[in-house]
Amino acid sequence: MLMGHRTWLFGNSPVIISTGTVGGPFEANGNIPNDIDILHEDMWLNQDSFEKAQQMMMEEACQHAIKNSQIEKEQVSFFISGDLINQITPTSFTAKTLGVPYFGLFNACATSMESLALSAMIINGNGANYILSGASSHNAATEKQFRYPTEYGGQKPPTAQWTVTGAGCVLLAKEGTGPMVTSATIGKVVDMGMTDPFNMGGAMAPAAVDTISSHLRERGIDASYYDLIITGDLGHIGREVSLDLFHKNGIEIDENKYVDCGLTIYREGQPVLAGASGAACSAVVTYGHFLNKMKKGELNRILVVATGALHSPLSIYQKDPIPCIAHAVSIESGSDTL
Amino acid sequence: MLMGHRTWLFGNSPVIISTGTVGGPFEANGNIPNDIDILHEDMWLNQDSFEKAQQMMMEEACQHAIKNSQIEKEQVSFFISGDLINQITPTSFTAKTLGVPYFGLFNACATSMESLALSAMIINGNGANYILSGASSHNAATEKQFRYPTEYGGQKPPTAQWTVTGAGCVLLAKEGTGPMVTSATIGKVVDMGMTDPFNMGGAMAPAAVDTISSHLRERGIDASYYDLIITGDLGHIGREVSLDLFHKNGIEIDENKYVDCGLTIYREGQPVLAGASGAACSAVVTYGHFLNKMKKGELNRILVVATGALHSPLSIYQKDPIPCIAHAVSIESGSDTL
Repeated sequence: MLMGHRTWLFGNSPVIISTGTVGGPFEANGNIPNDIDILHEDMWLNQDSFEKAQQMMMEEACQHAIKNSQIEKEQVSFFISGDLINQITPTSFTAKTLGVPYFGLFNACATSMESLALSAMIINGNGANYILSGASSHNAATEKQFRYPTEYGGQKPPTAQWTVTGAGCVLLAKEGTGPMVTSATIGKVVDMGMTDPFNMGGAMAPAAVDTISSHLRERGIDASYYDLIITGDLGHIGREVSLDLFHKNGIEIDENKYVDCGLTIYREGQPVLAGASGAACSAVVTYGHFLNKMKKGELNRILVVATGALHSPLSIYQKDPIPCIAHAVSIESGSDTL
Repeated sequence: MLMGHRTWLFGNSPVIISTGTVGGPFEANGNIPNDIDILHEDMWLNQDSFEKAQQMMMEEACQHAIKNSQIEKEQVSFFISGDLINQITPTSFTAKTLGVPYFGLFNACATSMESLALSAMIINGNGANYILSGASSHNAATEKQFRYPTEYGGQKPPTAQWTVTGAGCVLLAKEGTGPMVTSATIGKVVDMGMTDPFNMGGAMAPAAVDTISSHLRERGIDASYYDLIITGDLGHIGREVSLDLFHKNGIEIDENKYVDCGLTIYREGQPVLAGASGAACSAVVTYGHFLNKMKKGELNRILVVATGALHSPLSIYQKDPIPCIAHAVSIESGSDTL
């Protein structure tokens, strides 16, 4: 169960029996539209606010996952989720609609794997039969809260990233067929003194390296055990910084097997600066794109490392540096042949 | 383990081996100063901001709990906590100082018991040896964010409540001597259409009743099993509304054994309107006052039901009602004689 200081090995292998992923117009025009279950043509989804639109997407992702499974919503023990909006209201209002007992989380863009790790721990410990685990974000709602309303048209430096509009969730079960959650390593807060809210990738890279190296050490494996190591939203900057840090720390990482959700969801030509970000980025890309590849037998073992920057607009005004965190969860098909 | 739909019975009885509680000047002048480990004379704690002062108090509570136990900080597996401030920055910066792997939570003033339930589940499932579990709040930081800066001197109706300035945490362990966490019931979001941000007690009462009645039903006991049923911060209004609802639902509750942390921490004469509130309220009063009574043999079995209002200033502006939640955790001494 507990391996080393902060790695869990799930002996009862909780199973992902179904998934639900939702995206907006930018994601529909991106790299992996066929891997996203529901795509919307506008950012409003006929709602009065961007926050309500985000709530709708999280509800759709959950309802899609339930519809795709053979179970009823009333059988779901818990909904474990969070988002970036103040007091995570899109998630709490989703919990109200679902009517499922609810744990609200906040670890910024690392929330998806914070949720999956906790969900797997609860199921592995016989604390639930089925859990809905996921995260959401919305570009316009996030920009309005963290930077400027998008209508303001503020210019951004090339190190900035583009928040994904979407939601992704899994239905985790004690038994059934599907990819299994086999282990997790919980992140520590890592703060290298970065203060630029327009360079999240650079700030989060050390946290990703800290969690990945602890995972490999505590699980007693090396990076080649995984077909892919997938970071959440380091983007171009964070990816390069992390590769440098791996190299400096003597950790062998095959660059071809080290990918980033933020560099996967959008096409090369889309105006997304250093790449995608947002709590939905790792959720939509993992639960849509990479799990589809696993179901097609193209991947057997992946390590998903969601990365989060734990600042707030207020902490930036108060001249605090940006503390970051990364949580790693391994998902395995159970097969050894590709 | 899982009893009914959302109640956990912890067969391995995680143990509270030590606690740490901190308060400010209002709490020092309140009803239970002797039950609070560290009391501060001002709201600033020599910091540049109220948020930083809140962070200091959470750090002090954690360090006090560690100091009072026989273990080292490096043996603590996880820090599981949250607060009311946007992006829970006081908690995340505390996690950075502690250097302990971290799960960030948000369920408003229900966060303390959300954390204790998750911590007990993880320890019960052999996922950790020691966990720091707690919550914090700060009157001036919260007022500034949710209503008006206190310096503004805005008037409040009698239904309003006074946010506790403080922090409370426990060090939970697999074994050792101390009160045991024996069960937990996870709340659903309950929304009765209340829209007044100055009447949290009234809004949260239905959620408390929902969780308490589910707990009693799923655990197959009645209210008399507990020496006390303790709500987090319903205050005068919420307490009365909940008693009416219990009565309407045919649930027998002995009023003398049904208390509220929000009506415990301050003296009758203090200007706190309908009572105390805040994520620290249930943490400080439970981990200070009620656990001290348990250690003195005055209480054997208590059910702590932290209550949270899940709105944000933005959701109120957008005319949303206030969704609420309550999580219940039972703490027992293991003895049957008072």
